[in-house]
Amino acid sequence: MRLARIATTSGVHSAVWEDDGWVTTNSPYSHKRMSKPQFFRPDEVALLAPVEPRVIVGMAHNGSASDRAFAPQAFLKSARTAAGPGDTIRVDPEFGRTVVEGELGVVIGRDARNLTESSAPDAILGYTVTNDISLADQSLLDSFWTQTKNGDNFSPIGPWIETDFDPSNAIITLLVNGRQVAEASTAQLARNVVELLVYVTRYVTLGPGDILMSGCPGTMCAIQPGDAFDVKISGLGMLSNRSS
Amino acid sequence: MRLARIATTSGVHSAVWEDDGWVTTNSPYSHKRMSKPQFFRPDEVALLAPVEPRVIVGMAHNGSASDRAFAPQAFLKSARTAAGPGDTIRVDPEFGRTVVEGELGVVIGRDARNLTESSAPDAILGYTVTNDISLADQSLLDSFWTQTKNGDNFSPIGPWIETDFDPSNAIITLLVNGRQVAEASTAQLARNVVELLVYVTRYVTLGPGDILMSGCPGTMCAIQPGDAFDVKISGLGMLSNRSS
Repeated sequence: MRLARIATTSGVHSAVWEDDGWVTTNSPYSHKRMSKPQFFRPDEVALLAPVEPRVIVGMAHNGSASDRAFAPQAFLKSARTAAGPGDTIRVDPEFGRTVVEGELGVVIGRDARNLTESSAPDAILGYTVTNDISLADQSLLDSFWTQTKNGDNFSPIGPWIETDFDPSNAIITLLVNGRQVAEASTAQLARNVVELLVYVTRYVTLGPGDILMSGCPGTMCAIQPGDAFDVKISGLGMLSNRSS
Repeated sequence: MRLARIATTSGVHSAVWEDDGWVTTNSPYSHKRMSKPQFFRPDEVALLAPVEPRVIVGMAHNGSASDRAFAPQAFLKSARTAAGPGDTIRVDPEFGRTVVEGELGVVIGRDARNLTESSAPDAILGYTVTNDISLADQSLLDSFWTQTKNGDNFSPIGPWIETDFDPSNAIITLLVNGRQVAEASTAQLARNVVELLVYVTRYVTLGPGDILMSGCPGTMCAIQPGDAFDVKISGLGMLSNRSS
């Protein structure tokens, strides 16, 4: 099932993909059609971030098997960094390098605290593409990555959620101005999605619409003003944004 | 003007204090009465956190004048940590010490990015009492204070917002089980509220209802299960919570 939030001439709706178009639903967490659903062709909508998270969690050093030598380490991004497909990210050289990171995003579907290996899968609504954007040079000055991770639109999410998706070996491809700059598999991540959720929810309660960015297996690149960058994940789709 | 969110027999309302009671308003950011306002006596309501923040920002090492030697350093707390007066905080010895910190809270009233010394005051809706609760021992393992700062109800806020308040020399008193354990003035903070907002909003956009916890001038104490703890700020009121 593919779930999205769509902007239309009749307003913003939650929707599910059926019969080559979007059918409006009552909630972003459900495929239940509205009692009088509307149908939109793809060319009639603009896709928004598929959820409005209250909490966005990222993972430091989870990019390769060798990172298992370290304890897992999560960080928070402001909910106000959430952005959708097509949203623009401002590059300000005053802050040093701006870096994009293509990552698998896990969308939480229900209240989630103290998840276990067996309960974690049920807390996952689905998966989406995320881009964890950073002011990479700020991290040298900024112990908590607060300055580093929280610029406007620094967390693009989308284009939609797939509820039936195997996160264990998906290919993440990063393109800048149409040229492939990095490609890697989620199989390279130090810890898998369930391990990350067990760790995170021991300390941070998550809830419906929250996003876990699962870490960057080298799918990163510094960007310049005016760049177009796309994160593709096999089986999920492509999340495209630009910089100004 | 004193603003609150109240739970009543007719539901949750925003309200303003008038004539020794609460008069319902259209929004937590306004004193405009509803077209048909309801009036509640204080004994008819339960006070909730006066806002529902999307972003909660705390300040590391801002507790004394000597902290000016360091660059300011902000951290994020999950919006899901927000709690109200009377809410219970679970103390779990498995995580080491749980520490409460009485702090002056700044409530943001409008979109706030790149604030300056002159524009910052207009972005402030008012002030409230906050308690920045931590799993203090986790910070030794947790570079980003993610594990440290994000337990359920770890950010009590309240009991209300005062819009007319001088933050420069307010007395913060911390009581545990009715006994005063610490007292300090906001005048001791390394950086004042305007300086903090200029710093934070350079990197993190804030908006209506967001909370800046302005740092802890020694008004802290480790707590045990079953403790009652109160943070009083002169001119603002008292925020009371318990642990289990």
